[in-house]
Amino acid sequence: MTRVGDIYPVEKVVLREVGLRDGLQLTKTFPSTDTKREWIAKEYAAGVRHFEIGSFLPATRFPQFADVREMIETVTAHPGAHSAALTLNERGLKDALQTDVDEIVCVVSATEEHSQANARRSRDDAVELVRMACAVREAAGHKAIINTGISMAFGCSIAGSVEPAEVFRLVEKLLDAGADIIGLADTVGFAGPQQVADLTGQTIALAGDQPISVHLHDTRGLGLANASAALDTGARILDASLGGLGGCPFAPGATGNIVFEDLVFLCETKGFATGIDLDALAAAREIAEASMPGEDFFGAIARAGPPPNTGWRASV
Amino acid sequence: MTRVGDIYPVEKVVLREVGLRDGLQLTKTFPSTDTKREWIAKEYAAGVRHFEIGSFLPATRFPQFADVREMIETVTAHPGAHSAALTLNERGLKDALQTDVDEIVCVVSATEEHSQANARRSRDDAVELVRMACAVREAAGHKAIINTGISMAFGCSIAGSVEPAEVFRLVEKLLDAGADIIGLADTVGFAGPQQVADLTGQTIALAGDQPISVHLHDTRGLGLANASAALDTGARILDASLGGLGGCPFAPGATGNIVFEDLVFLCETKGFATGIDLDALAAAREIAEASMPGEDFFGAIARAGPPPNTGWRASV
Repeated sequence: MTRVGDIYPVEKVVLREVGLRDGLQLTKTFPSTDTKREWIAKEYAAGVRHFEIGSFLPATRFPQFADVREMIETVTAHPGAHSAALTLNERGLKDALQTDVDEIVCVVSATEEHSQANARRSRDDAVELVRMACAVREAAGHKAIINTGISMAFGCSIAGSVEPAEVFRLVEKLLDAGADIIGLADTVGFAGPQQVADLTGQTIALAGDQPISVHLHDTRGLGLANASAALDTGARILDASLGGLGGCPFAPGATGNIVFEDLVFLCETKGFATGIDLDALAAAREIAEASMPGEDFFGAIARAGPPPNTGWRASV
Repeated sequence: MTRVGDIYPVEKVVLREVGLRDGLQLTKTFPSTDTKREWIAKEYAAGVRHFEIGSFLPATRFPQFADVREMIETVTAHPGAHSAALTLNERGLKDALQTDVDEIVCVVSATEEHSQANARRSRDDAVELVRMACAVREAAGHKAIINTGISMAFGCSIAGSVEPAEVFRLVEKLLDAGADIIGLADTVGFAGPQQVADLTGQTIALAGDQPISVHLHDTRGLGLANASAALDTGARILDASLGGLGGCPFAPGATGNIVFEDLVFLCETKGFATGIDLDALAAAREIAEASMPGEDFFGAIARAGPPPNTGWRASV
């Protein structure tokens, strides 16, 4: 079993690129396996080391993730790179444990309403699935860490506002179930920076030595303000997708995840070394954009570049 | 003479809508005088009270500001609304003092290079122009307050990085010259939230009882993160433009000011009452968009709306 600190060193800022997973959840087109390999290779060359690259879901319904095993192999072939994949049920978990994946991502909804609508199970059943995942992983002697995201943690497309106490109750249950990392997800982009600071700070306090991650969407324009607040509060693991790819079926008209390139810039302006080169990252974006005609790619850095005449560059 | 506190009450967050000034600086088209009146009326109905509505510049070169006097009259006709207009030289100042304008905006560049290139004068000469403006205003017994913006305060399109000490030196000189408000402008969108916090905090300390304002552009995606940092540091006056209208000749490809609607949302999530209704603001945006075909209007709230099912609304 991997120790979580091997993948997420304490205090170091880690940016997880989720474009090949969350980014492809709803797109009309998706890249070929070869293009995905190139996407990963270019991002790796730019300094990216944490890749969430697919889901263990039925290939008939989610053809974009049919090559999840190849993607895990691709990431594994890059020294020091870490692969993460989503599993939503026992079947997916078992499939994941047949691979070399470094991190298995599970999801629990913050609200009962969304849990039932999205996963057709109660939140308590979802927590038990995480407990089972930790036990099965242990029994199999598999190295993967278990990352459990709490979706709709900052607001729910169905239930509306979410009581922080409900989120903290889930955090405690998930820690008790054995999750290695807890993630707070603003799935539909309801959050503001104060709310992010409050929820992140309290979750860090509950998690103690275990890391937490923050997954933000830019639906209402506050994604990077929220990321800044999360960093200020002590969060060190943040999700983003190349070009802000990805959306949510519960947030029509919404932009997707926060933009990976812009998040790199934010972190660097705040003095957090990301080890990621923005110029090199642009090459990955080119491949992604060319492979998905008609999909919207977002991002200010991709358009304006880093500040000119300042000698600015990421801390590679 | 108006006391600055009459226009900018201490501790209350004030959002200045600069769409009809900074927003029109570079657009290819601009609204008719009647449409501008409607724009102001709709914004006023939504709760906006601070309008920067034009520049005293030669109408031959800047036809979009030829009706600046009518705009001042329009704002003045709305009870409790405040008008601000830009002046860049002695002639403009004298013209402004012939009107009922509540606030005269002057600009000093943070760097010598930009000052010479943009205004063809030294920074010291620009400071002396502010001193003269304060004296002439005083002698005329005119009510207008003098707001002096420091452009390029966070980075310069020509000189690159800007030493904070240079900005603080200008702040002190401008206070000595009699400016009622000092503004810090990220004219080309170089700033990150830490830099905004550092510069804003120190400027507030220097300004003492006098208010400061922060003028941000969203060129590199950090506009709202920077606004959030400015609010956290104690700034209470922020500029923004409807739909993020406006750009800068020194920042090609750049989006303009931070988006007024999104800034309202940010403030409200942070517990700062803006008194501005987002639904009503959308009516102003409709008028603005219809009057300027081909211009880019930005904004996440305009696309996604405030969080649904939460009973969310601005604090009107």
